[in-house]
Amino acid sequence: MTTNTYIHGIGMTKFGTHEDRTLKDLLLDASRQALEDAGRPKVDAVFVGNFLAGSMSNQEILGAIVANDLGLGFVPTAKVEGACASGGIALRQAVLAVMSGEHDTVLVAGVEKMKHAKTAEVTQAINAAMDTDSSEKSAGLTFPGFFGVLANRYFHETGASKKHLAMVALKNRENAMNNPLAQFSKATSLEEIMNARMITEPLGLFDCSPMTDGAAALVISRKPSGIHIKASSLVSGPTQMQDASDLLSIPAIGESGRRAYEKAGLGPEDIDVVEIHDCFSMTEMIAIEELGFFPRLEGWKAVEKGLTKANGEKPVNTSGGLLSRGHPIGATGVAQIYQLVRQLRGDAANQVEGARIALAQNLGGTGSYSAVHILERV
Amino acid sequence: MTTNTYIHGIGMTKFGTHEDRTLKDLLLDASRQALEDAGRPKVDAVFVGNFLAGSMSNQEILGAIVANDLGLGFVPTAKVEGACASGGIALRQAVLAVMSGEHDTVLVAGVEKMKHAKTAEVTQAINAAMDTDSSEKSAGLTFPGFFGVLANRYFHETGASKKHLAMVALKNRENAMNNPLAQFSKATSLEEIMNARMITEPLGLFDCSPMTDGAAALVISRKPSGIHIKASSLVSGPTQMQDASDLLSIPAIGESGRRAYEKAGLGPEDIDVVEIHDCFSMTEMIAIEELGFFPRLEGWKAVEKGLTKANGEKPVNTSGGLLSRGHPIGATGVAQIYQLVRQLRGDAANQVEGARIALAQNLGGTGSYSAVHILERV
Repeated sequence: MTTNTYIHGIGMTKFGTHEDRTLKDLLLDASRQALEDAGRPKVDAVFVGNFLAGSMSNQEILGAIVANDLGLGFVPTAKVEGACASGGIALRQAVLAVMSGEHDTVLVAGVEKMKHAKTAEVTQAINAAMDTDSSEKSAGLTFPGFFGVLANRYFHETGASKKHLAMVALKNRENAMNNPLAQFSKATSLEEIMNARMITEPLGLFDCSPMTDGAAALVISRKPSGIHIKASSLVSGPTQMQDASDLLSIPAIGESGRRAYEKAGLGPEDIDVVEIHDCFSMTEMIAIEELGFFPRLEGWKAVEKGLTKANGEKPVNTSGGLLSRGHPIGATGVAQIYQLVRQLRGDAANQVEGARIALAQNLGGTGSYSAVHILERV
Repeated sequence: MTTNTYIHGIGMTKFGTHEDRTLKDLLLDASRQALEDAGRPKVDAVFVGNFLAGSMSNQEILGAIVANDLGLGFVPTAKVEGACASGGIALRQAVLAVMSGEHDTVLVAGVEKMKHAKTAEVTQAINAAMDTDSSEKSAGLTFPGFFGVLANRYFHETGASKKHLAMVALKNRENAMNNPLAQFSKATSLEEIMNARMITEPLGLFDCSPMTDGAAALVISRKPSGIHIKASSLVSGPTQMQDASDLLSIPAIGESGRRAYEKAGLGPEDIDVVEIHDCFSMTEMIAIEELGFFPRLEGWKAVEKGLTKANGEKPVNTSGGLLSRGHPIGATGVAQIYQLVRQLRGDAANQVEGARIALAQNLGGTGSYSAVHILERV
């Protein structure tokens, strides 16, 4: 079924490096912006998406901190975790809270602070999104390693090459250059991307999302507004690579898309603008296929034709995506909605003319979670 | 309003030290028991309460792990965190998920594994339940320190003494001796408790809940069963000691109780059996007052009269409580419900004759969260 929830306000900090600001400072900043944008409504509950604050900042109880520091009173709050999908899952819980009839207006925020730590520490912390009891994790599999294997297999099965991944990265960088909140605004070239330092064969530096500090927030309500949350879906999928029946499918993405389309009574052809979880360039390639925008194993052809550019027939990641807008993990799923609301309001970076229906897809782990939200301008 | 949810199954591992079992093993064990007890229903969603697995076991994505390893398919799952209230909050999210109409049957699990780490590491990890930006945390305040201050103030304001706290600890140990799943089953005496090693003045070793490994799980459903979740409430409160207007009140406990009573259409006098969050003996003392079982600043008199014993007029922590059943943080709120369901079914450790209405109260931080659930045998 569709939801009875609407988006009333959005907020977002700049994504990037915030040496002088704490996790809490970022979280409260985005939350205050969203509340201001919504006209300072009475808030009935708070959900915060976050992945690493416990292990990397010795800071949990983020829900209570928001309620306390913003003076919201005795409202129910919680932190929600589902690896890189934490933000999308937090929105999903907020939607359920409104649908339950217990709450009218809910604040959703996502936050992460990663740049204060060494890369090796972050890599270790992020590996909490793998199953510790599995042989894969103990054997040294990392997330770049996983998506690198998929990319090699994709090249083997299709006519795609490293150039097509570079075209994804270049498109997202070009989009980010118009987004003042994005982490990266420096121009680059296909050549620079293809020759960049190798991270894990065949993925180079530009094929991998960066470490990022940042926060984003939303206010949703049962009270109608101009933007309806037409569908909210969340699914869990295999937590281990060895459970995958097909290396070129991430089943959670496809299933979350099908469920969302069914709830919304829409299909992929109806979507005007998309934010996809491009943690790696290869992930965007698979996701545009899983979500039905392009046929299986043919996403690379669409990329080659420029169909996913902001002015293409299916604009993907007009924000710059995880690759160039940045990926403060718990904030990412919320920031996707921020960009789509701007699109539906008509004042986005890389505005898609007349955008009316928008889809966000947020991935956790190697396919352990996928959350999809479909928004409609009403 | 009341809820339309019922409890169909319960499961719990022994609480204590599980050197040879992983976090996942404990989590799946309790979950399988609950599913078996519920008659192996189709599960539509999973919520896992957990606090420390990211920082202490490098393991997140617990929701997806449960779905994957139990073969539940593409069900939505999430981990929920609210410090020591994580388990109660997970149940609350499951109740909202059923009330939303999106899900019929939901698995709720809570888990923690702490005994593999050194005490100092655990203390550090647990301090994530304080506000890192506050001067209190950087000044060295810990949880025993916080509750120690409250105890000293309580002694100052009332006629209570260390003996009354010891009586709480002794009662809970005596209850635990009849609970085969409890961490501690060794008999003790008031004298031993009062002379035990000091942790923080005036709280000795027996006044403080232990480090514990363990897991608990529940299956709830819209389909009626013999046990109705009559009320579910969750509130956030002050996250810092300096925000407390009164050292002898933990406002979140009182407010969560009042909201639950209102939803249930009941009062404290209607409750037959109680599980309270006795992270310290002093916390139980305050909670029995905040929940309206005894007048403010007079809980110690009730304890002295034995009114909170299993055969008293208001039996509290018949499981042994956090102090003696043990406190595997994320599991605690779920284990409270486990004990109360056993009470309502009539086969509990320290069975209260004819128990029909039960209340669980689960605290997070120094009062950052309090969740209350009221169950009724129908």
